[in-house]
Amino acid sequence: MPSKDIKQPKNLKISDIGEKKLIKRLLSRSRALQPNSPFFDDFYFKSLSDDAALIDLDDKYLVVTADLILESAHLPQDMSPKEKGMKVVTVNVSDLAAMGAKPIGFILSLGLPGDLPLDEFDEIMDGVLYSCQNYEIGLTGGDTNQSDELILSGTGLGVVDKKKVLMKDGASPGDVVAVTGPLGVAAAGFEFLLSPPPVKEVLKKNLKPSTLKLIKKHAIEPQARLNEGIMLADTGAVTSATDITDGLASEVGELVSASENGVGITLYETLIPIIPEVEEVAHALNKDPLDFALYYGEDFELLLTVEKDDFSHLKDQFGLYEVGVVTSSGKMEIVNKDGKTNLLESKGYQHFK
Amino acid sequence: MPSKDIKQPKNLKISDIGEKKLIKRLLSRSRALQPNSPFFDDFYFKSLSDDAALIDLDDKYLVVTADLILESAHLPQDMSPKEKGMKVVTVNVSDLAAMGAKPIGFILSLGLPGDLPLDEFDEIMDGVLYSCQNYEIGLTGGDTNQSDELILSGTGLGVVDKKKVLMKDGASPGDVVAVTGPLGVAAAGFEFLLSPPPVKEVLKKNLKPSTLKLIKKHAIEPQARLNEGIMLADTGAVTSATDITDGLASEVGELVSASENGVGITLYETLIPIIPEVEEVAHALNKDPLDFALYYGEDFELLLTVEKDDFSHLKDQFGLYEVGVVTSSGKMEIVNKDGKTNLLESKGYQHFK
Repeated sequence: MPSKDIKQPKNLKISDIGEKKLIKRLLSRSRALQPNSPFFDDFYFKSLSDDAALIDLDDKYLVVTADLILESAHLPQDMSPKEKGMKVVTVNVSDLAAMGAKPIGFILSLGLPGDLPLDEFDEIMDGVLYSCQNYEIGLTGGDTNQSDELILSGTGLGVVDKKKVLMKDGASPGDVVAVTGPLGVAAAGFEFLLSPPPVKEVLKKNLKPSTLKLIKKHAIEPQARLNEGIMLADTGAVTSATDITDGLASEVGELVSASENGVGITLYETLIPIIPEVEEVAHALNKDPLDFALYYGEDFELLLTVEKDDFSHLKDQFGLYEVGVVTSSGKMEIVNKDGKTNLLESKGYQHFK
Repeated sequence: MPSKDIKQPKNLKISDIGEKKLIKRLLSRSRALQPNSPFFDDFYFKSLSDDAALIDLDDKYLVVTADLILESAHLPQDMSPKEKGMKVVTVNVSDLAAMGAKPIGFILSLGLPGDLPLDEFDEIMDGVLYSCQNYEIGLTGGDTNQSDELILSGTGLGVVDKKKVLMKDGASPGDVVAVTGPLGVAAAGFEFLLSPPPVKEVLKKNLKPSTLKLIKKHAIEPQARLNEGIMLADTGAVTSATDITDGLASEVGELVSASENGVGITLYETLIPIIPEVEEVAHALNKDPLDFALYYGEDFELLLTVEKDDFSHLKDQFGLYEVGVVTSSGKMEIVNKDGKTNLLESKGYQHFK
């Protein structure tokens, strides 16, 4: 029984509309179905479309994030069981980092194929526990089930002072747009890992061993910027933030659409931090390294907007990279190397598309 | 790299050891890998093997539970999309109920097949929202992903006063063992729903329509005993509790193994609440209705131990059924109709077996 206030062509499938529209659809259905529920206030809706959900705990927010990882969709074959376990923790912790929250627990629900060797289960859990220790978060609970493929469903819990929480909305014209590290490195790694075997062989021959090692590590053992997120939230100078999981362009779009009408963001192509190793891989594949930074994700760096006056000392303290400016144009734009301004498409990795 | 302190035959698979041993294995690995972590204290381990995890929030516990539902493993074909959505909320809320916790939020991660009709997605979400409203819990966040089969991964969050929390341990010899409602009703429903078509036809002819309706409703639209859990925790007279998801025998085993050495439980066959409808179905299938109550789950009633002096007024207030007594035998026993005492096996539904 589709609700009558949402018009739609008949016989639509999930794959016809894509992940972000699906979430918007869910939000409007929640509101339509339960207009008088005390849970569904404006804050609730803001929180639902942010990196993690916020629940009121007096002077603090409980921050809750969930990420479901499916072997077939999210885990390259070259990943070891331990690395798979590490990744499910990192993707959740990264969402906590994006809100400036201190982790207080991690819950893991596992779907396990019945023929999974016990050794492999042990190694996955070693990875989970290793990452939990790394981020100083306890593995607090979970559930196990039999499934056809490996499923790692993680829930990260954190707390943050209400005054300090980092949200996707809040950017003001004039703020500096910045990122916490180089972009496109994980993209380069995945381009290598997901290449067909003959291409991979050529890349192995042509790329520097140190480049191969670096890009693979970024793709397979990404690190969440947890300490940076907590410390940046503490400064009070960050006006909005998110983590870069779907590519810079997509995340810039998130900040723009979460903010008040009229807020836009302009990026400067020459400022986007692309390391020589990423250029080397892009060159070898005859691709544009800028695309790796803009339209690919998985770097788990943070995207921030910062008050202009505070930026220079934060830049030094946290090694931030300025990549653009918040405008009042309402648009997403990018200024290319020749100084020409183009519209920036908010595309990135989306499920169901 | 399996840790050296856990001896095991080579080439074991997940299906060789079963769910409960898998969780014990994980617990001992956590302790072995991180002996000095501040997270892994005794309380942490107690909490990890309970219905939900507990996280310290000053005078309260944050209660966190996770349940992963896979269409192929957990959802009968006769279930409508709306009922599937309702179920993922109920299984999580039932774990909160078992700890006496008030729900504060529900997080849902969805795995969705790309060809899932959008109408069906809407109906699933209607079920989720309907149940959330029913239990007065907000749908606080989530994640969507493409997957081969429908996956509903829920996380329930609740809070409970530290002094009032209901745990699996705590039963003392002399306590009354009780349940909040009749058992085996969902089992009867699943026996019908999962019957091969010819058997189903016969059952449809031979069972009373009111029986069919009742057992199907219990299997397909189970209700968590949330208010009962919260109010029972408030009384301070409940010494231990869990929800009955895997059958009475299995859950009795959970209470016994969580308690101090020497605590046992004796059930009385004649006291176990089995309604005539369940007897009718068992009779039609030539099965023992007691098996439905003991070794099947999904009723989502609560199993409690209660101080003897408080039982009679709680019984009236909450409609409890006395089913046995806590002993100091260290054993699980059942007294049959003829007064003979037999050992009770702690078996029930287990994944991977």
